[in-house]
Amino acid sequence: MLINRIIGYACDVNPGLPAFVGLDGVEVSYAQFGEATRRVAGGVAALEPRAGASVGILALNSIPYLEVFLGAMWGGRVAVPLNIRWSGRELAYAIEDAGIEVLFVDDQFAPLVEQIRALAPRLRQVVHMGVRPTPPGMVDGAGVRSAEPIDPVPVTADTVAAVVYTGGTTGFPKGVMHTQGSLLASAANCLCFGSPAKGSRYLLAVPLFHVGGYGLAFAQLLNGGTLVPLPMFRPDLVRTAVLQRGVDSIGLVPTMLGMLMDAPGFAAVDYAGIRAFAYGASPMPLPLLRRVMETFPHAQLTQVYGMTEVGVATMLPDHWHRGPQARVTAAGQPGPLYKVRIEDPDGRELPRGQLGEVVFYGPGVMKGYLNKPEATAEALRGGGMHSGDAGIMDEDGVITLLDRIKDMIVTGAENVYSVEVENAVAKHPAVAMCAVIGIPDEKFGEGVHAVAVLKPGAALTIDELRAHCATLIAGYKCPRSLELRDAMPLSAMGKILKADLRAPHWAGRGRRLN
Amino acid sequence: MLINRIIGYACDVNPGLPAFVGLDGVEVSYAQFGEATRRVAGGVAALEPRAGASVGILALNSIPYLEVFLGAMWGGRVAVPLNIRWSGRELAYAIEDAGIEVLFVDDQFAPLVEQIRALAPRLRQVVHMGVRPTPPGMVDGAGVRSAEPIDPVPVTADTVAAVVYTGGTTGFPKGVMHTQGSLLASAANCLCFGSPAKGSRYLLAVPLFHVGGYGLAFAQLLNGGTLVPLPMFRPDLVRTAVLQRGVDSIGLVPTMLGMLMDAPGFAAVDYAGIRAFAYGASPMPLPLLRRVMETFPHAQLTQVYGMTEVGVATMLPDHWHRGPQARVTAAGQPGPLYKVRIEDPDGRELPRGQLGEVVFYGPGVMKGYLNKPEATAEALRGGGMHSGDAGIMDEDGVITLLDRIKDMIVTGAENVYSVEVENAVAKHPAVAMCAVIGIPDEKFGEGVHAVAVLKPGAALTIDELRAHCATLIAGYKCPRSLELRDAMPLSAMGKILKADLRAPHWAGRGRRLN
Repeated sequence: MLINRIIGYACDVNPGLPAFVGLDGVEVSYAQFGEATRRVAGGVAALEPRAGASVGILALNSIPYLEVFLGAMWGGRVAVPLNIRWSGRELAYAIEDAGIEVLFVDDQFAPLVEQIRALAPRLRQVVHMGVRPTPPGMVDGAGVRSAEPIDPVPVTADTVAAVVYTGGTTGFPKGVMHTQGSLLASAANCLCFGSPAKGSRYLLAVPLFHVGGYGLAFAQLLNGGTLVPLPMFRPDLVRTAVLQRGVDSIGLVPTMLGMLMDAPGFAAVDYAGIRAFAYGASPMPLPLLRRVMETFPHAQLTQVYGMTEVGVATMLPDHWHRGPQARVTAAGQPGPLYKVRIEDPDGRELPRGQLGEVVFYGPGVMKGYLNKPEATAEALRGGGMHSGDAGIMDEDGVITLLDRIKDMIVTGAENVYSVEVENAVAKHPAVAMCAVIGIPDEKFGEGVHAVAVLKPGAALTIDELRAHCATLIAGYKCPRSLELRDAMPLSAMGKILKADLRAPHWAGRGRRLN
Repeated sequence: MLINRIIGYACDVNPGLPAFVGLDGVEVSYAQFGEATRRVAGGVAALEPRAGASVGILALNSIPYLEVFLGAMWGGRVAVPLNIRWSGRELAYAIEDAGIEVLFVDDQFAPLVEQIRALAPRLRQVVHMGVRPTPPGMVDGAGVRSAEPIDPVPVTADTVAAVVYTGGTTGFPKGVMHTQGSLLASAANCLCFGSPAKGSRYLLAVPLFHVGGYGLAFAQLLNGGTLVPLPMFRPDLVRTAVLQRGVDSIGLVPTMLGMLMDAPGFAAVDYAGIRAFAYGASPMPLPLLRRVMETFPHAQLTQVYGMTEVGVATMLPDHWHRGPQARVTAAGQPGPLYKVRIEDPDGRELPRGQLGEVVFYGPGVMKGYLNKPEATAEALRGGGMHSGDAGIMDEDGVITLLDRIKDMIVTGAENVYSVEVENAVAKHPAVAMCAVIGIPDEKFGEGVHAVAVLKPGAALTIDELRAHCATLIAGYKCPRSLELRDAMPLSAMGKILKADLRAPHWAGRGRRLN
């Protein structure tokens, strides 16, 4: 089962249906899409015949983006959709790491090319896929995209088809290797879930270098549905897509949903055509979710959860957003092509309801990190992808995420999840804000350490806090030390920066601080 | 991707939902189903520890049938669902061929066991899965099904999980080897199509030894839906299932649909709860289809097409049954996990609209025929499963079946499809009934030979027939000889027996006569 099948399948059975509708109204049928893909594959082969040369894409979402993405894979190349928020230095790192010798750029990113070229000697050809005149030194994309179409290069399900970079804010980014088979497994898993819905017209607002972008886009293409690529998220563009291009289905990260409803002149009636929202990639604040449900009462809501390393693995369907059985704080249930286990640090599956690491198994899991055998062995130990997320699974297989594993404290032989202790500490009437971290402890390896901002005029001792917590959680989980602060270090998003809290305690020691 | 995943998945995410509802009202949750499956696997392992021992099942559709089928695979065994219409001799052949050492039989088939045992020395254990007392010499099924549950035996996607016999009316039956991966691919393909529908309660009327039985049953289980197994097709049992067990979806062969509507006391209102019919396995007569559509105006119709060797590969969705775009004579479109090509005898893909052999590719295709390397090499030459069906694919990937390849005539270097010539011959006003076959021809290898029954008082010469046909089809396709008969040899189903027409011409020569 190959992701290349998308192209063959679409052209076999849906040639006349629209694969894409542009914001400008341009329609591209599946037959046209298939031909463009084959031509791109032919153009790349002519430009750089060496099969080992990877193909990078640095562009806003567009129809040509998907033609190049799928065309590169059709031609047996590794496609590398690059993070459009990266600096030239980060881009150059990825180009060298992934062996990108052919880079497609659009008008937006053409100005970065000079800097990238200086930093990435491996880059041989830059193809301009914009509408402006082709800048000097670049290959004209129109020529590449009108080359002689080629048959697919023979590949197997295990052939690496794409490298998608993850991380990058801390340390070097890691290239996640996905295969022909793993990309298709994720797409088929979405369809088994029934999302995106058959016959829908889906707004691709999440960038294509992100799993939430290409993951659902590939599912929609396998489904014979229509994609409307949005170059960037902007409420006015979403409105155009809905009112003028018939978009009825949309995938967004929670922040975008908030921006949409907060936009000047927002009127829900303009968006009444939207029948389905898929959201994910970051936690959905409950008040925002309630507002979405009130604003769009007729829209089906689906939360998707996964990660670059595994694709779209779980979904929370609409019916769990409503009524007395609602589980809106959950991440969802695994689809039929994934197995998800909650494991202890030794890789044993934990009973339902116990907190542990979320580990993904199945054909959608990455082949490994590019050029990083040690990180691969660590992440895939035991055969499953260790997500780094701490969560529980209930009796119905519904997963709720509670913490990051790195925020877990190992004290003695026990694992303590910071979020569980924080929930107990936060219930003390003196506490305004708190965080719980692990700090060095001679006897236990790590000790449970509470950091708190108190309410005005309040006071709190460690003994009082311990006595309070002992009524809520097991003794070994209760804080052994307490640090009072006037304020917490916060990120721009309002998240407590635990790494900053941990740093002074671990200076000169080995613990990973991020 | 493993078919065993069905059990793990169902128990992970749908433990409380009903996997089965019996005609008697008994409900079995997915949790109970999973446990029963694991227990059967444990019971089989205790009974016959040798891993190479296959597990046969000879029973009417029932809940235990699926527990044993999936339990055997869970335990790493090859499951062999046996044709309940076979004689003891045919059953013994399959038991020896497939290495069945443990056979599960229900009350219905227990009387056959003595004869089978005498013919099949390889059979070691017969497990009685009925409700009557266990006959002497058989193992009590209740004991096997209450053994200690076991973990799944490690297998890969390429491990043979089931052998399903096909044919048997002509020559020896062939055991089709399906793997853990191929069975799951077929089930996932159905779900990508959206059939059976999410949350449906599906009547399993097609026997479980048939691809139309287990194929859709596995899809429904992967979907978390409910199965109502019907021990045999009887209109009164279907009525009970719909009225008392809430069945809303049903899979039938066309003959059953006719029997349902022809049953004494049939009232469409009794079946108003049925929202979906899936039909297939043999051609659907157009008048019958029209009658179904008039009788059940609110039911969604889906035709499924495939074969034992490939699973459920194509579907004709409801919207192509209605309106001006209706294509009710078509077999359907491939699902996204299959590739279907129309090929010439040299394995080249033919342009759309040209008649050739339907060849299936993809992960759902069988591993091969058991103990038949030559038949396997022939059927899977070039990597795809040669169906033996002659058909065309139109521009939209819709496949229409027109003939069997064995009825094709090879004359000179050209392939002539008998059905195309028959359509031309039948248009002659003198012809009441006709068939076109290939007969020996010194010059061309085979000659196009028409056999006709004329209308009362009519006359026809070969020259007149050729002149008529030449206005409709190419010259090399026109009959070279004509044989007039008073009547055609017909099967009980009213089908012209071409083998009988061919036999006298080919006596003592090499052509396959069936």
